[in-house]
Amino acid sequence: MIKRLAAELLGTFWLVLGGCGSAVLAANFGGEGNPLGIGLLGVSLAFGLTVLTGAYALGHISGGHFNPAVSFGLWAGGRFPIRDLAPYVVAQVVGGALAAFVLLQIAGGQPGFAIDPAAPGTFASNGYGAMSPGGYGVAAAFLCEVVLTAMFLVVIMGATHHRAPVGFAPLAIGLALTLIHLISIPVTNTSVNPARSTAVALFAGPQAISQLWLFWLAPIVGGLLGGVTYGWLGRDRPDIVGNPREAA
Amino acid sequence: MIKRLAAELLGTFWLVLGGCGSAVLAANFGGEGNPLGIGLLGVSLAFGLTVLTGAYALGHISGGHFNPAVSFGLWAGGRFPIRDLAPYVVAQVVGGALAAFVLLQIAGGQPGFAIDPAAPGTFASNGYGAMSPGGYGVAAAFLCEVVLTAMFLVVIMGATHHRAPVGFAPLAIGLALTLIHLISIPVTNTSVNPARSTAVALFAGPQAISQLWLFWLAPIVGGLLGGVTYGWLGRDRPDIVGNPREAA
Amino acid sequence: MIKRLAAELLGTFWLVLGGCGSAVLAANFGGEGNPLGIGLLGVSLAFGLTVLTGAYALGHISGGHFNPAVSFGLWAGGRFPIRDLAPYVVAQVVGGALAAFVLLQIAGGQPGFAIDPAAPGTFASNGYGAMSPGGYGVAAAFLCEVVLTAMFLVVIMGATHHRAPVGFAPLAIGLALTLIHLISIPVTNTSVNPARSTAVALFAGPQAISQLWLFWLAPIVGGLLGGVTYGWLGRDRPDIVGNPREAA
Amino acid sequence: MIKRLAAELLGTFWLVLGGCGSAVLAANFGGEGNPLGIGLLGVSLAFGLTVLTGAYALGHISGGHFNPAVSFGLWAGGRFPIRDLAPYVVAQVVGGALAAFVLLQIAGGQPGFAIDPAAPGTFASNGYGAMSPGGYGVAAAFLCEVVLTAMFLVVIMGATHHRAPVGFAPLAIGLALTLIHLISIPVTNTSVNPARSTAVALFAGPQAISQLWLFWLAPIVGGLLGGVTYGWLGRDRPDIVGNPREAA
Repeated sequence: MIKRLAAELLGTFWLVLGGCGSAVLAANFGGEGNPLGIGLLGVSLAFGLTVLTGAYALGHISGGHFNPAVSFGLWAGGRFPIRDLAPYVVAQVVGGALAAFVLLQIAGGQPGFAIDPAAPGTFASNGYGAMSPGGYGVAAAFLCEVVLTAMFLVVIMGATHHRAPVGFAPLAIGLALTLIHLISIPVTNTSVNPARSTAVALFAGPQAISQLWLFWLAPIVGGLLGGVTYGWLGRDRPDIVGNPREAA
Repeated sequence: MIKRLAAELLGTFWLVLGGCGSAVLAANFGGEGNPLGIGLLGVSLAFGLTVLTGAYALGHISGGHFNPAVSFGLWAGGRFPIRDLAPYVVAQVVGGALAAFVLLQIAGGQPGFAIDPAAPGTFASNGYGAMSPGGYGVAAAFLCEVVLTAMFLVVIMGATHHRAPVGFAPLAIGLALTLIHLISIPVTNTSVNPARSTAVALFAGPQAISQLWLFWLAPIVGGLLGGVTYGWLGRDRPDIVGNPREAA
Repeated sequence: MIKRLAAELLGTFWLVLGGCGSAVLAANFGGEGNPLGIGLLGVSLAFGLTVLTGAYALGHISGGHFNPAVSFGLWAGGRFPIRDLAPYVVAQVVGGALAAFVLLQIAGGQPGFAIDPAAPGTFASNGYGAMSPGGYGVAAAFLCEVVLTAMFLVVIMGATHHRAPVGFAPLAIGLALTLIHLISIPVTNTSVNPARSTAVALFAGPQAISQLWLFWLAPIVGGLLGGVTYGWLGRDRPDIVGNPREAA
Repeated sequence: MIKRLAAELLGTFWLVLGGCGSAVLAANFGGEGNPLGIGLLGVSLAFGLTVLTGAYALGHISGGHFNPAVSFGLWAGGRFPIRDLAPYVVAQVVGGALAAFVLLQIAGGQPGFAIDPAAPGTFASNGYGAMSPGGYGVAAAFLCEVVLTAMFLVVIMGATHHRAPVGFAPLAIGLALTLIHLISIPVTNTSVNPARSTAVALFAGPQAISQLWLFWLAPIVGGLLGGVTYGWLGRDRPDIVGNPREAA
């Protein structure tokens, strides 16, 4: 169990360091009008690749959730035992927070670096309303996070289904996270992952903290919805509960 | 059968939400001159990833068509029974329309959001002539949709052929859709999928509706052409008709 | 044999339609300063995806060369019989030329479309000196095409080697072509494929035609070099000559 | 052994030619404000694809390290015998230097090409402080290179673990390198590879040379850290030492 938790911690560390790191360090490199920066497309790719690479490397140890909403959804879909839920979530939040701390040390190495707590998406934080990159309201943000997390769980459960092609699940799941970011960065800066939201909010200031509730509630609601939907669609039987290899 | 139709509905929902959603929400984020938006490249990637991820997750349930032109083409190529054609097409159109409705709720959460029915590509709609993003005429648009849908079917049937490497079909098919978008978004905003065109046209206004005929006719003609071509090329025998796993 | 040649024709058709098509129709969409177009990155991806998807769909029929330099190189590496060389090359050139013709019909559907025979890279043509996108001289262009085609053959022969992971060759080979374009579009507009160069030169004007010699000579020299190099490195034995499945 | 070293030489040649080549030739094509160039996203993709394609082609010969930090890390993780370490590192440095030489010949074919030894990232060199693309200090640069190389080794060892899906390791490892570049090009121009840093520093001028120490020290420290971490996490046993296929 200690190695499974270490794998979840390390994987979520990688997710936040890579996804939020690319957003903070490289998205807008060179400033407006300069096309060198990686933009939203590059950040979307980075988030997906953290999960793709992390799941190939660590999925065979812990299942490769790296995300409380995924753990909740897999439980709802009958693929993950409830007794492991709390330790997994704790490991994920700790790993993410460590990554945000390391990222801050790196980002702070640039002269003039500062976090503006009132800027939308500051330090890669998630937000709605005044803190949404595109100014989207709370209802749209909530709907967006619920629907995308639900579809994320459908892809996760479907691609790890015993009838799906073997070995491709990390590819499909990682690229699903890329796709989710391609859609929704302008809306909420894309969470679908409470651990990722919490990690950067710890350093992004009070506005980000005050909006964290949505980025726990909506992804978990979406995860449960997706888990239940695919649980029915894929006729999963409970005999695979607790097998971390199913949930890569 | 109900689960197969549910899978087609859900997969086409994902295709429209992801592909058209990225176009509406993120393609031009920040406005002209700002390189942060994902542009045509990001939208192309998003469309492909909806199919890649959807086919890995749901392909083993329904075959993962998510597109009436694909269902027609697979029938023409001897891979899909005609009795399933109508229910599949209905499920695809319903799933796409649901996604367009959800997308409208999210997009409407941005202050100032409005659909201009006369703008080319409005709400990710397909069009020709005055409604083509690059102003391409009806003949070029028709030719483009026919040829690209035909090649799409060649890739679909070839990558799911029993002699092709096992498990890679969703990867090849999804990335074929990305490629198709990389080529043709300026021409028609890229359809090759009547369900996707119909879904957004329902909300994009009368001009988009009035041009829908082309985005049913050309993709289906192309699909039949591609299905027949590969049916000859791959010497497929009818013994695999009705097996959804072949048509992932 | 007729189906193998048809597959080569169709695959090269796809390569030129997709690669050159994305360059002509979408690379600079919106004009300078507008980040919507797919740029060199999108064109690089498109070229690679034509081969990735074509090789998964057609590789099990013809080996999926789609390129005279590849056929020459595989012969030099002991993987392809010399008697098939001429018919393969003819099928590739015909397929490419057909694609360029279709592309011209689509591109011509945009009001104001015209080919400027003196512009570097016009109609996706390859060139050096005054016809190089970045103004690179003939020696640099020759060196670049030789080295990149040689490495292309190393990847092709290595990824289809009997000790390489099964099924991944089209992925590796397609993405190698993407990589080659990411490096060298500014130098020669990237050929490494005489059929692709010939196809668009037929419509691009006299300058492109007069420079075609380099885009036959250099890729074939590179292909032979790469084929011989890997032939030694991978200790390939002649017993796999003529087996198209090895050369996907 | 000669073929294993030739494969390491050729693979590192490909890594430097492709990664640094795309940066030098294509990253900023067209100049500022012109979105045609491939930017940091394209360079990140190119670096990753050199490893992805090189590892599929050559991994079954040498293990596909192409990087002294990887060889050190695999030794620390119990996957690579110390007697092979020095020859591998020499082959990697020679291969990289050859690529930088070839790249210089190609780049020099453009009228007006010149290397400015004082410009950050000149000739794709790595640097910190005044030589960092974003002006990041030495501590941030060191931390960044250590952490990213450590995570690179975790992905390498995890994806080649005997419990990980077979055949996907080159995909995961190559895309991990893409991810690493998406994060850190602005910080150090991204090394995580002493051979790559040395190769271009030889031609980039005295400033780049004087900073090389960091790009040997930090990646090797990170590699050792990652190797030891995964060595514990994956409970690797020494019975696989010396098997190059494990370390693809």
